[in-house]
Amino acid sequence: MVAEIICVGTELLLGDILNSNAQFLGQQLAQLGIPHYYQSVVGDNPERLKKVIAIASERSQLLIFTGGLGPTPDDLTVETIADFFGVSLIEKPEIIEDINQKFSQRGRVMSASNRKQALIPEGAEILTNLTGTAPGIIWKPRGDQLTILTFPGVPAELYQMWSDVAIPYLKNNGWCQGIIQSRTLKFWGIAESTLAEKVAPFLEMKNPTVAPYANHGEVKLRISARADSQELAQKLIIPVETQLREIAGLDCYGADDETLASVLGYLLLKNNSTLSVAESCTGGGLGQLLTDIPGSSEYFLGGVIAYDNTVKASVLGVNLDDLAEFGAVSAIVAQQMALGVKTLLKTTWGLSITGIAGPGGGTATKPVGLVYIGLATANGQVESLECRFGQTRSRDWIRRGSASSALDLLRRRLSS
Amino acid sequence: MVAEIICVGTELLLGDILNSNAQFLGQQLAQLGIPHYYQSVVGDNPERLKKVIAIASERSQLLIFTGGLGPTPDDLTVETIADFFGVSLIEKPEIIEDINQKFSQRGRVMSASNRKQALIPEGAEILTNLTGTAPGIIWKPRGDQLTILTFPGVPAELYQMWSDVAIPYLKNNGWCQGIIQSRTLKFWGIAESTLAEKVAPFLEMKNPTVAPYANHGEVKLRISARADSQELAQKLIIPVETQLREIAGLDCYGADDETLASVLGYLLLKNNSTLSVAESCTGGGLGQLLTDIPGSSEYFLGGVIAYDNTVKASVLGVNLDDLAEFGAVSAIVAQQMALGVKTLLKTTWGLSITGIAGPGGGTATKPVGLVYIGLATANGQVESLECRFGQTRSRDWIRRGSASSALDLLRRRLSS
Repeated sequence: MVAEIICVGTELLLGDILNSNAQFLGQQLAQLGIPHYYQSVVGDNPERLKKVIAIASERSQLLIFTGGLGPTPDDLTVETIADFFGVSLIEKPEIIEDINQKFSQRGRVMSASNRKQALIPEGAEILTNLTGTAPGIIWKPRGDQLTILTFPGVPAELYQMWSDVAIPYLKNNGWCQGIIQSRTLKFWGIAESTLAEKVAPFLEMKNPTVAPYANHGEVKLRISARADSQELAQKLIIPVETQLREIAGLDCYGADDETLASVLGYLLLKNNSTLSVAESCTGGGLGQLLTDIPGSSEYFLGGVIAYDNTVKASVLGVNLDDLAEFGAVSAIVAQQMALGVKTLLKTTWGLSITGIAGPGGGTATKPVGLVYIGLATANGQVESLECRFGQTRSRDWIRRGSASSALDLLRRRLSS
Repeated sequence: MVAEIICVGTELLLGDILNSNAQFLGQQLAQLGIPHYYQSVVGDNPERLKKVIAIASERSQLLIFTGGLGPTPDDLTVETIADFFGVSLIEKPEIIEDINQKFSQRGRVMSASNRKQALIPEGAEILTNLTGTAPGIIWKPRGDQLTILTFPGVPAELYQMWSDVAIPYLKNNGWCQGIIQSRTLKFWGIAESTLAEKVAPFLEMKNPTVAPYANHGEVKLRISARADSQELAQKLIIPVETQLREIAGLDCYGADDETLASVLGYLLLKNNSTLSVAESCTGGGLGQLLTDIPGSSEYFLGGVIAYDNTVKASVLGVNLDDLAEFGAVSAIVAQQMALGVKTLLKTTWGLSITGIAGPGGGTATKPVGLVYIGLATANGQVESLECRFGQTRSRDWIRRGSASSALDLLRRRLSS
């Protein structure tokens, strides 16, 4: 018993809107434990929609449609479905009544075009829409072999109809065989391929499954368990998570909604210490990541954006001779920036970033992507980390990677 | 000659990620004038992927795949495509070489699993990936009847490969019959509904069409013209753009790739003046926006992240009595922050932000969403702007809106 999602709308093909409905329905089906293998997007075209229905109705038993329920001529999902199965449409007085009421509540009069929304296939049930004028249908055109649900494309209406009507219907009709629960572990400082090799046996598991993802230098492992209840799913996930964390060690920084900034914030709070930052190539991006976290004022006091060398020298006290001799992008300048901001803002720790984000400014010895992270420690010592992000990365990528690497440097320090 | 988009990845079916790649490709195909009628999403499953390929290769002549090019076992798009067409994979030494280089640039060693990414179907060309390790392919498995392009699922890599390789390829191979050209005007400081009313007649036009969009407080009008050539499309677009800019005045800050930061940067350069920033609730976000622009070091010297009040006083010289009497979120503190950073960094202009980003910290008189922008002018005077973003906005929304409003304040000042 497999579900399939069919999204109808030329605006989706043109990319005028993002298909968030498919993501919502995908998440919902996973949580309900209803397997779903295919999603299709098709424009407001009856012939093509029929072709999609023909394919989907052969490989899936629950077809979930979104879009094309409106009053305008290009809204033709329901009539096309009825036409495909050779069933005629009948007008439902209760829908006319409902639409009339909604219009009068808004002090308006129902337009003739809305009558179209009261037409549903003979034998179908109404899938009530509490907020909008477009109702959906629940229909079994081939007895128990095939169930069809239709929803408007308007996300808010889809969400309400799904929660209030579709979920109870699916549960009461034996669609929900257990649930799927996921837990995503997050990693920094290790390549996806390297991590995948370290945990190779886990990637072969069937329940829970473990799948790797990578984006902007961050790697993730998603553990997904299928079970009859959340409790049982947790029983499957927890031991796998424990083993994965043991294998990854400090490369694993957190899970699910945790970010490098939130984890570092937790560690700073736990250690009762404060942080300030000095940023050159990131221009404020490190401070922004830290202050993305509500309550970060408990441990983050602020920083200096030392984009120009004069600011590195005058505000942070970086030595002008060192700037001249080693250049702004150097370990020693990163260290002096970190110590300078820690001293100026009187914090426990000072973090700094100086590097070449590109696209210009690279040289043979100092290519684009070369970044130094400086750390002034609680006891006043300084250290630094050299990062080489590669000359092929975008300016945005290098800046994000630099800020994350800075957070990660102090996170590892406080974790060990 | 019709294109079709096939997105591969179980994470899409599970709704773990939003399918933004499909939107990007849909927009791109529309702009190139290449019709596309169907999109499919399928999981990391060879048998199901083959079924999708069988259907798509019968109804479309250009198949665009995203996802499943990575080094891990569940990345199997290319081998499955080759298997479907009964062609064997061959290892490309130049890809191995390229991956090796990218790893060494990052001071890492290529892992064995990456060799997998060097396998492409016999007869296929390499679709070069400048940024990541996963190359795509350009392949005609059935002569001119069918063209296959594959891309990684990582959006940044897809975008670069599409622009640098796919677009030239499609244009040179006769895929672009006529074109759709778009020009997007960008607005700040006016509501979408207000703008839509001002330009109502334009929204009824057929060629070019004018469509409004809004996101995070920014409003856009996209002018799209269909024509046989870029020149003819421009002839349709330019007069409409001119009229729209006249109607909108200073509310229109730019077009297409221009951002508030890039436009402000251009104005600062033109006026031969420099800028520094003092940030409280944005925590560095204003500096980051300014330094998103390559070459911003020409006019942006840096700033102070004064997240904690002690920093506002000690580093920026904000008066402690005023902090006590009026609070950190006040016009006078914003003005003193702006003047303080302008003085400290010796810049022509000083911009500051202090506000309540939430979710906590709001009061009856100073609700979440209340933000003050301070401006210290070239002649040493100070002024401020009060913004009320509303208590229903997210922390992220308020922080972004605050930074944009600060950029916009100086932009208008330098434009008039």
